[in-house]
Amino acid sequence: MTVTSSDTTSVNPSTPALLGAPRGLAGVVVADTEVGDVRGREGFYHYRQYSAVDLAHARPFEDVWHLLVHGDLPDARRSAAFAAETAALRRLPEAVTAALPAIASAGAGANPLAGMRTALSLLGAEHGFRPVYDIDADRRRADTVVAAAAVPTLLTALYRLGKDLAPVEPREDLSYAANYLYMLTGAEPEAERVRAVEQYLISTIDHGFNASTFTARVIASTGADVAACLVGAVGALSGPLHGGAPSRALDTLDAIGAPDRIDSWIRKRVLAGERIMGFGHAVYRTEDPRSRMLRETARRFGGARVEFAVEVERRVEAILAELKPGRELHTNVEFYAGVVMELCGLPREMFTPTFAAARVVGWSANILEQAQDSKIIRPVARYVGPGAPAEVPAVA
Amino acid sequence: MTVTSSDTTSVNPSTPALLGAPRGLAGVVVADTEVGDVRGREGFYHYRQYSAVDLAHARPFEDVWHLLVHGDLPDARRSAAFAAETAALRRLPEAVTAALPAIASAGAGANPLAGMRTALSLLGAEHGFRPVYDIDADRRRADTVVAAAAVPTLLTALYRLGKDLAPVEPREDLSYAANYLYMLTGAEPEAERVRAVEQYLISTIDHGFNASTFTARVIASTGADVAACLVGAVGALSGPLHGGAPSRALDTLDAIGAPDRIDSWIRKRVLAGERIMGFGHAVYRTEDPRSRMLRETARRFGGARVEFAVEVERRVEAILAELKPGRELHTNVEFYAGVVMELCGLPREMFTPTFAAARVVGWSANILEQAQDSKIIRPVARYVGPGAPAEVPAVA
Repeated sequence: MTVTSSDTTSVNPSTPALLGAPRGLAGVVVADTEVGDVRGREGFYHYRQYSAVDLAHARPFEDVWHLLVHGDLPDARRSAAFAAETAALRRLPEAVTAALPAIASAGAGANPLAGMRTALSLLGAEHGFRPVYDIDADRRRADTVVAAAAVPTLLTALYRLGKDLAPVEPREDLSYAANYLYMLTGAEPEAERVRAVEQYLISTIDHGFNASTFTARVIASTGADVAACLVGAVGALSGPLHGGAPSRALDTLDAIGAPDRIDSWIRKRVLAGERIMGFGHAVYRTEDPRSRMLRETARRFGGARVEFAVEVERRVEAILAELKPGRELHTNVEFYAGVVMELCGLPREMFTPTFAAARVVGWSANILEQAQDSKIIRPVARYVGPGAPAEVPAVA
Repeated sequence: MTVTSSDTTSVNPSTPALLGAPRGLAGVVVADTEVGDVRGREGFYHYRQYSAVDLAHARPFEDVWHLLVHGDLPDARRSAAFAAETAALRRLPEAVTAALPAIASAGAGANPLAGMRTALSLLGAEHGFRPVYDIDADRRRADTVVAAAAVPTLLTALYRLGKDLAPVEPREDLSYAANYLYMLTGAEPEAERVRAVEQYLISTIDHGFNASTFTARVIASTGADVAACLVGAVGALSGPLHGGAPSRALDTLDAIGAPDRIDSWIRKRVLAGERIMGFGHAVYRTEDPRSRMLRETARRFGGARVEFAVEVERRVEAILAELKPGRELHTNVEFYAGVVMELCGLPREMFTPTFAAARVVGWSANILEQAQDSKIIRPVARYVGPGAPAEVPAVA
């Protein structure tokens, strides 16, 4: 009956039961999950049992979304029903649409995820989202679906407004991926591009307890509403150490410029201890399965850019194997994700927002799972400053 | 030189180095801090060496803010300069002011912190806040000060707009606390109320790694901008297990109603295993030092409401000592915080937002400290679902 209330559920750092943890909580298990897993040694990751890559080959985005938030892959009837349900939710509430020009122009629109953060926060308030601990599981799921369905509409409208273009109204007859490209450009996209973007989106829905997913779960553990959780996750994704990177691998390709410059460009940087964007991974000791899939996708398009990317990959891996033996350094998801998004006509400033349009489904599943727990996530810090108490000096 | 990139800095859950952790990370040290400490056995907490209660008695809010974000208590000259600097930042950018009516009316304004979340996100974008890892420490600090200085203006404007009242422009000649009450009511507040609110605000600036503070630090660890961190923290604070509680202790006083009903009301609930809001604390094994200070503050006002609160406290502690021997259950910060805020004329829906107007300074200090680290906070989850991979069924 007693209260572990609000701000007060801390644990005293002078309590003997204090537990140390590695910096950044690396390797610390903070939750049990059924959402998915990443097996770095095998080069394998999955969503609720199913290989994410297999899903990207076999199913539309909406089916995988259903898998994540409902817990199973839908049969044909439920697949069609969920696709129709989510398509109808693409249209924004009028009050949100009306606010988008002001949101898009804030700070000259320099940060697309900042606009998304604001718009999603407003959307949640407009829908009257309530604390996850005050509503049942169906209502929570419905809130996540309402929010995620609106994300592509928000992102593309903010992007177009930032270019002084009118937003394009969503179409319900298009798939999630096709409608995303349609709202971005105003033209019906080619099937090859739709499928490529869809495979990218499916492959990036979830990937372990990355910082944005963890943020969403910490916020959900306080019982806050779904928008509060998602807005925090968008904030984390906007950090350069997290989602800020997908266009940087392309910048590397541009900087190298031509095949005959690859070796000298890469060697110079590796020897100077610099990062080569798009290579190396903290988890995978094999090829990144996302990278492998997206390389195939890029090769379906073909062309000089793809050939150059493949050549850069081949040369960099050889140089890294020579200069960093035994490190097993391969391309990571960023490398071919950038190439594929470029092939599909996505501007670089939309790479991380497009990532968000997929990851919002992973965040949703994690929020729903966290909301079933009733324990707030509340670690402690170790005070390492000078001894206390010190006398408060009078104002001199 | 290799990349630990973006989404990919995870640690493989199949790696042997996995470490278990208590549920909710209770007692797990996730960072070293110089911001402050909570010593539960001693009933003592401090900000950078100085007892928070002593600070609340001896210094204005702005000096403690300076202590938190600059690292030291200012002398008279710097105190005046910081007060002037922050007072000038109370006025909002025009684009934010223009957006507030739409933000306040979203979802009929049912959730004041949701409005604050949206407005603060917009404010950060309007000011062009950049990722904390891309700017120097002075710029980061300046961003936190710009944001925190605007919080009372945002909160009171949103509150008044929700009541169909025009927002009250901030005044630079008033202290942080006085201006807050002034903007809320449009009338210059009594000195006694200003001082009471100021003491409450100072006492609640920081208190260990509560969930909102931790959220702010996780987001900061990705390198995201200050607004992204603060917006996530506001989201966490809006959760009922965190900041959602300060008005509930008053609801308890109302429900009891009269002194002769205290015993039967409390006994019935304790015996039914229910929570008594405002009592008990996960850290303090003594009286909560915030509770003690706020009781004194309330007693300066006096009156029947205060006498009743003191009587309820006395009776509940006696009943809890009888029915839960050895548990050391006392009032927590919520109990007298609610009484004090009521005495100062704050409406209950503004209790948690007022908490936010103080805690934003604690979040600021924690964001600045986290930004000095370059390690993303990125734990792992343990997959406990059915075995993978399973074959993806064809659409039936």
